[in-house]
Amino acid sequence: MSSQWDLHQELIKDYDNRYDYNGVNGDRLARRLHLLSEIGLTEDKGSMRIGFSQEEKQAKELAIEWMKEAGLSISKDGAGNVFGRLEGKDPSKPAVLSGSHLDSVPNGGHFDGPLGVLSALEVVEAWKANGYQPDVPYEVVIFSDEEGSRFNSGLTGSRAMTGTADIELQGELTDQEGKSFEEVMNGIGLSTETFAGAVRNLDEIETFVEVHIEQGKRLEQNNLPVGIVEGIAGPSWLEFDFIGAAGHAGNTPMTERQDALVAAGEFIRNIYDLPKGYSESAVATVGKLNVYPNGINVIPGKVALNVDVRDIFEETRNQLIERIEKEAARISKEFGVKYRFRQTLKVDPVLIPDDLKEKLGQALEQHGIEPMELPSGAGHDALIVGHYLPVAMLFVNSKDGVSHNPDEWSSLNDCVQGVHVLKSYIESLT
Amino acid sequence: MSSQWDLHQELIKDYDNRYDYNGVNGDRLARRLHLLSEIGLTEDKGSMRIGFSQEEKQAKELAIEWMKEAGLSISKDGAGNVFGRLEGKDPSKPAVLSGSHLDSVPNGGHFDGPLGVLSALEVVEAWKANGYQPDVPYEVVIFSDEEGSRFNSGLTGSRAMTGTADIELQGELTDQEGKSFEEVMNGIGLSTETFAGAVRNLDEIETFVEVHIEQGKRLEQNNLPVGIVEGIAGPSWLEFDFIGAAGHAGNTPMTERQDALVAAGEFIRNIYDLPKGYSESAVATVGKLNVYPNGINVIPGKVALNVDVRDIFEETRNQLIERIEKEAARISKEFGVKYRFRQTLKVDPVLIPDDLKEKLGQALEQHGIEPMELPSGAGHDALIVGHYLPVAMLFVNSKDGVSHNPDEWSSLNDCVQGVHVLKSYIESLT
Repeated sequence: MSSQWDLHQELIKDYDNRYDYNGVNGDRLARRLHLLSEIGLTEDKGSMRIGFSQEEKQAKELAIEWMKEAGLSISKDGAGNVFGRLEGKDPSKPAVLSGSHLDSVPNGGHFDGPLGVLSALEVVEAWKANGYQPDVPYEVVIFSDEEGSRFNSGLTGSRAMTGTADIELQGELTDQEGKSFEEVMNGIGLSTETFAGAVRNLDEIETFVEVHIEQGKRLEQNNLPVGIVEGIAGPSWLEFDFIGAAGHAGNTPMTERQDALVAAGEFIRNIYDLPKGYSESAVATVGKLNVYPNGINVIPGKVALNVDVRDIFEETRNQLIERIEKEAARISKEFGVKYRFRQTLKVDPVLIPDDLKEKLGQALEQHGIEPMELPSGAGHDALIVGHYLPVAMLFVNSKDGVSHNPDEWSSLNDCVQGVHVLKSYIESLT
Repeated sequence: MSSQWDLHQELIKDYDNRYDYNGVNGDRLARRLHLLSEIGLTEDKGSMRIGFSQEEKQAKELAIEWMKEAGLSISKDGAGNVFGRLEGKDPSKPAVLSGSHLDSVPNGGHFDGPLGVLSALEVVEAWKANGYQPDVPYEVVIFSDEEGSRFNSGLTGSRAMTGTADIELQGELTDQEGKSFEEVMNGIGLSTETFAGAVRNLDEIETFVEVHIEQGKRLEQNNLPVGIVEGIAGPSWLEFDFIGAAGHAGNTPMTERQDALVAAGEFIRNIYDLPKGYSESAVATVGKLNVYPNGINVIPGKVALNVDVRDIFEETRNQLIERIEKEAARISKEFGVKYRFRQTLKVDPVLIPDDLKEKLGQALEQHGIEPMELPSGAGHDALIVGHYLPVAMLFVNSKDGVSHNPDEWSSLNDCVQGVHVLKSYIESLT
């Protein structure tokens, strides 16, 4: 625990007070980011608030206190999702939702998640200061376990709310300590049963908007504080096994080999060049690869690898997946090895509707920010919600694009500008 | 333990008794292979006689009994190497040595090692039956710990005998159970000190000849029982690290990546094509590779891999190593990654002297076998001894080239023909 380090002080050091207008307060936002950072602070100044942990619960409880102070009425569902509601002039209308999550990856940063929750709350604080009430209800939402670090899953709270969580599968999960989902949920006063009951009637919600750090460098490269997300790429995970024949590295002539790793090497090299042929936002990555038996003097008999394929456009994403499998087939033939293929994850991408992008653009221009559109390669709760409701997202500039790391950073100037844009956008909806 | 399985019965099933001539006896060889196979027999019918284990010791003791029965006088050195000496008509002359090892890899086969020891002994048995005494002394040798499975080293006994073992390094080794070299040696009545004293005066030895299974398919493809080893490739192990930049697989555009695995993929693919440009016997293999951090949705920041390079010709082997490093440098530049390189092992190859190959050829022809020369890609005790003394090697046909595996097999017909050739060769030397 670093007792010398103070996120609040770090944030306000370079803050330009001119961004304090229309009731938005940079110091409050910085202080709250700091107070959340103290829950689960690691020795590296990182954040350790795994989904469904005591730390995540403690962070939610602190945020609930702030929500109550801001005049929101709190409700929680059986997945641990928190909703803080401000009644609209017409309470019968469906609500506008905004928020994000408070869990982190192990030793993660302090902006991924908290910034979205606190930005949504800061809008309420500003309205309170200005005596403003929206026409329709507004809810600040905290989704549970977005990162999925405990069970290697993710987007858990938003899946539960939209009724798309696979309850049976969820009940079978065990964490690295061997604890079942049921045991983990019991530890925070919930259960698989309450989780299954967390489905919300989506007719109660008009739209969802999420503020999140970019976790990339595009805004930084364009010297912009905030940008419009044009679409959210759903991850597709492809698992390939290349199966050759193990053999002695000394005694097997080069002409008589079925080297699984040589085939995998050509595959990795070649698919690296494929995405650009499909769309500007398409990406394909071999992040995980294991060689068997993995001995210095043994020709690899098997290579198991995973390809992560993403695009914000479903059609080009699917074409790219097809092309990648064709490449595996061609290479297998060339090198006399076999391959096995299966798709282990396929989350469809979400495109942000044109009318919402337009409203976001107007909100940006109101605050003198050039509207720039950029894709989200990472999944977010807005991706899950976006399969059912119109959603929008705003990205805030990430220093060096670093994320899931204690060095994750966004300047307070950029964060506060994000709040202003969010506020104007929401006001334009209500 | 498979009580139904009997190597002796398996071997003699297809044996052609016409190979029993000049005092050589196939049934005796088969029975002895069988009796050794029972020491450390695994559930898979494999062999488990790790170097410096009780099982290796027990196998040596059984062989010593046979040597004594055959009239050899036994001496042992401090590394556990065993020498069974038959005095020559002129005892002052340097000796001809023949033999191999009795240790195995975990769950290995029953021919790799034992066939060389028992073939050398069978020559003595045949001489005894024929009343033949060689002009110069002849010694049957059993080298300790050829495989090196316990300490990930190898060729330990022959290194000790030739005085090329690094005693300090040897003393620092620990096995997978955490036992030090000293503890392991103490367990069989030896020590690091006795090991250091095992150096033999090499003036006492004229030459060494080793019979070994091929562990490859060349003889099988040419339908030959026995072949002449033209040279023994020493393994060179190159360690490469490719260092790029880890990043989010979704949020990092393809144009902004420094993907260590893409660079490694091109490297692996390209060096596969290089050996043929240097010599027919050159090989290069990436057998071991680890990706960091190895997460499905993380661009690989680092790849550590090892290249095993071999050739029987020192010059082309060195040229190939140089070319491989150049390829790493070129690729690093192309993909904007860094690389680190170091050579962790370099054992120089040994070429069999022309006059010995000629005598081997004559011995083969005496028994109606077409003389075929082939390289040894694997290292053997003859490689170590060959750095100091003229050595020769005979390979015996290996079924499907399978080795280091319970399925390792050589027919008794081929094994006995190997003994005949060895006997004629040794007689031509003495």
